[in-house]
Amino acid sequence: MTDVLQRPNTASTEVDRQAVNTLRFLAADMVQAAVSGHPGMPMGAAPMAWVLWSRHLRHDPAAPAWADRDRFVLSAGHGSALLYGLLHTFGYDLPVDELRRFRQLGSKTPGHPEFGHTPGVECTTGPLGQGLAMAVGMALAERMEHARYPDVTDHHTYAIVGDGCLMEGVSHEAASFAGHLGLGRLVVLWDDNAITIDGAVERSCSDDQLARFAAYGWHTQAVLDGTDLGEIDAAIARAKADPRPSFIAVRTVIGHGAPGVEGTSKAHGSPLGDELLARTKELAGWDEPPFTVPVLVREAVAELAAQGAAAHAEWLTAFAAFEAASPEAAAQFRRAEERRLPDGLIGALSQVPGEKPRATRQSSQACLDVIRAEMPEVVGGSADLAGSTGTAFNDLVCRDDYSGGAIAFGIREFGMAAIMNGISLHGGFRVFGSTFLVFADYLRPALRLSALMGQPVIHILTHDSIAVGEDGPTHQPVEHVESLRLIPGLQVLRPADDVETAAAWQLALERTDGPTALILTRQALPQLDHDLFEGGQDVGLEIVATGSEVPLAASVAEQLRSRGQDVRVVSALDRSRYTPDPSATTVSIEAGSTAGWTGLVDLAIGIDRFGDSGPGEEVLAHHGFTAEAVLDRIDALTEGGAA
Amino acid sequence: MTDVLQRPNTASTEVDRQAVNTLRFLAADMVQAAVSGHPGMPMGAAPMAWVLWSRHLRHDPAAPAWADRDRFVLSAGHGSALLYGLLHTFGYDLPVDELRRFRQLGSKTPGHPEFGHTPGVECTTGPLGQGLAMAVGMALAERMEHARYPDVTDHHTYAIVGDGCLMEGVSHEAASFAGHLGLGRLVVLWDDNAITIDGAVERSCSDDQLARFAAYGWHTQAVLDGTDLGEIDAAIARAKADPRPSFIAVRTVIGHGAPGVEGTSKAHGSPLGDELLARTKELAGWDEPPFTVPVLVREAVAELAAQGAAAHAEWLTAFAAFEAASPEAAAQFRRAEERRLPDGLIGALSQVPGEKPRATRQSSQACLDVIRAEMPEVVGGSADLAGSTGTAFNDLVCRDDYSGGAIAFGIREFGMAAIMNGISLHGGFRVFGSTFLVFADYLRPALRLSALMGQPVIHILTHDSIAVGEDGPTHQPVEHVESLRLIPGLQVLRPADDVETAAAWQLALERTDGPTALILTRQALPQLDHDLFEGGQDVGLEIVATGSEVPLAASVAEQLRSRGQDVRVVSALDRSRYTPDPSATTVSIEAGSTAGWTGLVDLAIGIDRFGDSGPGEEVLAHHGFTAEAVLDRIDALTEGGAA
Repeated sequence: MTDVLQRPNTASTEVDRQAVNTLRFLAADMVQAAVSGHPGMPMGAAPMAWVLWSRHLRHDPAAPAWADRDRFVLSAGHGSALLYGLLHTFGYDLPVDELRRFRQLGSKTPGHPEFGHTPGVECTTGPLGQGLAMAVGMALAERMEHARYPDVTDHHTYAIVGDGCLMEGVSHEAASFAGHLGLGRLVVLWDDNAITIDGAVERSCSDDQLARFAAYGWHTQAVLDGTDLGEIDAAIARAKADPRPSFIAVRTVIGHGAPGVEGTSKAHGSPLGDELLARTKELAGWDEPPFTVPVLVREAVAELAAQGAAAHAEWLTAFAAFEAASPEAAAQFRRAEERRLPDGLIGALSQVPGEKPRATRQSSQACLDVIRAEMPEVVGGSADLAGSTGTAFNDLVCRDDYSGGAIAFGIREFGMAAIMNGISLHGGFRVFGSTFLVFADYLRPALRLSALMGQPVIHILTHDSIAVGEDGPTHQPVEHVESLRLIPGLQVLRPADDVETAAAWQLALERTDGPTALILTRQALPQLDHDLFEGGQDVGLEIVATGSEVPLAASVAEQLRSRGQDVRVVSALDRSRYTPDPSATTVSIEAGSTAGWTGLVDLAIGIDRFGDSGPGEEVLAHHGFTAEAVLDRIDALTEGGAA
Repeated sequence: MTDVLQRPNTASTEVDRQAVNTLRFLAADMVQAAVSGHPGMPMGAAPMAWVLWSRHLRHDPAAPAWADRDRFVLSAGHGSALLYGLLHTFGYDLPVDELRRFRQLGSKTPGHPEFGHTPGVECTTGPLGQGLAMAVGMALAERMEHARYPDVTDHHTYAIVGDGCLMEGVSHEAASFAGHLGLGRLVVLWDDNAITIDGAVERSCSDDQLARFAAYGWHTQAVLDGTDLGEIDAAIARAKADPRPSFIAVRTVIGHGAPGVEGTSKAHGSPLGDELLARTKELAGWDEPPFTVPVLVREAVAELAAQGAAAHAEWLTAFAAFEAASPEAAAQFRRAEERRLPDGLIGALSQVPGEKPRATRQSSQACLDVIRAEMPEVVGGSADLAGSTGTAFNDLVCRDDYSGGAIAFGIREFGMAAIMNGISLHGGFRVFGSTFLVFADYLRPALRLSALMGQPVIHILTHDSIAVGEDGPTHQPVEHVESLRLIPGLQVLRPADDVETAAAWQLALERTDGPTALILTRQALPQLDHDLFEGGQDVGLEIVATGSEVPLAASVAEQLRSRGQDVRVVSALDRSRYTPDPSATTVSIEAGSTAGWTGLVDLAIGIDRFGDSGPGEEVLAHHGFTAEAVLDRIDALTEGGAA
């Protein structure tokens, strides 16, 4: 594929000079108007952003959803004013009035970039390090899609990261993963300004970042003057030519050009103030009114936009040819991009439930076997627990062959979840990841972002209670299901058998606008007779349970019925959809925190302390998860209630 | 300080051969008896463990709490059988019956090592990577204590880490921090067995770990034959001599000596089986009964124990001399080690509350100023938000001077929390850390371990609601306070003004057996007239609120009282201590998830979706946190209730 941007590697021109200042002062004007925000990063990083967007980024501002566009991630999300300035200047649908309303309620220019909120924003950033990891996920998705559809997918992923991104642990997980998989289409620019919020980076960090990234197998370069557009351009060109992922350290000055604050942490997170901003503009020879994009810059970006539109048109032609030659493949590409389910899926899933007891993690593996046969766009893997979480597949994605669908994420839960977000944001895939439920804590920050961005990633979280047994309290989730239910927009499903696991997978896949957590057992569960669940219409007692506690509830109900009591059992696959019977005494059983149940039912049976190491059945019994213990609690309740 | 272990750097002796096999087969016997556990790691790592414990570790098995002992952390906690074998063999109070009860309910030998449960276990490990980070914290605490008490603190910290530890992001944060601070007393041995649970490491990771650690400023070495005791010994000796933290890659074979499974992931997490274990012992020339420590080994460790006891006695003498020369310093050392509060603290804290409105993060800074003056053992800092979280102090700990108490943790929340745990476990300090509440998600796995280990670390979590404002939903906590309340044993306090912030600090410091989270505002709050809180004895309405919503509750109550209604306002600094008035209608107001309140009160006013970017007051109003909106909801409730 030809590079559509024909500009030669030149030193700065007058257009360049004006364009860089445009980006600097749009950002400073925004922060000043809001009297809130981060001017320093945009002022320092404007040159690299301009070089990247004007010389390299292949995009069509009129079509921000074009599948084969290059991706740009501002991992240092606090520099949002730079991104908004770029989008506005390059002709995305972000009018100047939105820049004037920076950080105001209801504007398109929130404090940190938000995916789905502003055209051209590829992902939500701000929580540090995750932008880098999402860029890795996008770059992997690109290679995987390219392997499947070489004629229609062939683009780059660029990211600008800050010191904070590089200090965060997730940068290690993501960069190591990218190096291992040789994601050569990924180019990361480090805004090396040597300043963090609290002061100089050297107060807390002495890493040799180039050596570190080289140790991950990356191509590394340093640009010692971050205002030298030619050097930046040449470095990006070399990065694109190298088969490895590329890391470019670009030495910049935070708050560039603002006298008295540039190069210090004072420039990081506070407006410059009217006076200092005026003086800075004066020193830069900038006499445009606030929020101005000068004519020369407008003309230049108009030309670039035309080039982008031409590239897009060229791609549409290529896609039409592909569609004519391979209609089925093209239809599959479209279906995947649009997140539609194939017709045969539901029928195929309905074949999964069997009669033999098995763990829901095994039921889930059976579902995935069926799903992946019907939906090749479903890809994913595990943070090195594939054998345990029911996600073991042979078609491993590796640096020499990206055509498979099984991803070995390594022992990198947080990285996995952030990379999943990147894959999902890229589009063309539905992605799942897996680990033990207790380690959902490790990936929680990325899961929150999945929910905030409305990405339909699927987390398979197994070994879902103290029934884990011998591995002990470090590996036994207690508070985790409830803590996941607290994340707004996260669908949390805890199935009780094959039928419910298949239903859970269907719900997860049918959802296209938000993440799902599937909570699965380590231990085998019986296949339930769902007809027996319901008691009569007017029951005295309703027992609601989830997952592995549903068979326990059923067993308790059976004993109560044998005493002549009318009891209903409810399996709350998705507790948010459960409404208690107002005329019945209600009891919940879930081997986890009771906090979310106490407001729903009369008696919540659970566990609000850490578990113990021992055989799973013994640990369960020790904590009261036996029919006898539950019956005692119910008897105490109903006697108390009757008294 | 002299090295008490006089063994020369020799190649293996018969004692060594037997000792290594003792550790291997104790572990294999334990796993076999439990029919559960991880035999592979102990069998491969036994030689390095034996060299370390026999030639280098300065400890007194009869006195596991000796303050100046060397610390040993098994970061690869799934290898717990190795640690239990070491403790048993070296004469800690861990009888063979406990080894036979490996992974059984109530035994001293749980599946993963648990601090406080088994004598000699320095920290709870299993959640990967955290052991390394805790070792870094211990090594920092050692240097800080040494700087204050050079005559009584002077020891090393050793850790054995696995591939999983090194892939986890927290390893990056902790190793980078250790390199920056030049923690030369830290020696990390990497059990480089090239195998993870899912198979070969090369499936998911290509890092050059030595180059990576060198990039952090560590001293690095490789031992190519992990059964060569002389090489391991020499490498450790060189590591101790080098002023940098040391990383030693020791090439091992997982499941060493077990035919057919050694060197594969089959040896990782499953018992060998009786037959294979017997064959392995036969091949090793091991004909001892199960769970045997041979006489030769017992004699050797008895000699080592005597040396350890002598070192301990020598230290006691040194401490007595120190106490005689500097009674006040010695008393302070003791008080800090015993986590006792100084007499003047409460009085000093009572001077903090003022009359001017201020943010509780500022109240907290005022408390810390007072506390640190009274308690020099209180140390801590921030994940690079010191200026924002009220934790800015000038006495920065740095590689050239560890005598300060302010720690710049860098943009490393998870690393910070795990390092805090290490500092606390080391003893001699009370440690605090700080970040924005929304980033509590990043450090949650370590906070869970704090609670599990009963460590009284203090987390200062500020910017505690959507009132954060312009930074938007990525920076606005919603579900976080409630999710913290779910962690068993974590004390969660959300004060409403100066008085309550001082009280919260007192509660945090008085607690010696578990962690505390202080939830603090970004925005200024009025100083409350606590006398006005209580309504009459028999009120119709009780409004309970926390933190910044208490003034809102007070304002609502005032309006209701002006209508003639009798209303009580309760500030639930610690919600777990709040019991609703059963005879009143109860309403809660907290700018966060309602999930934990719905079971307590009749109406829970909160926010169960993500926030928005905009000025804080506007965002609050948009989500119903105004007196008017709350009054409407209460009116609707009481009218509904009356109907």
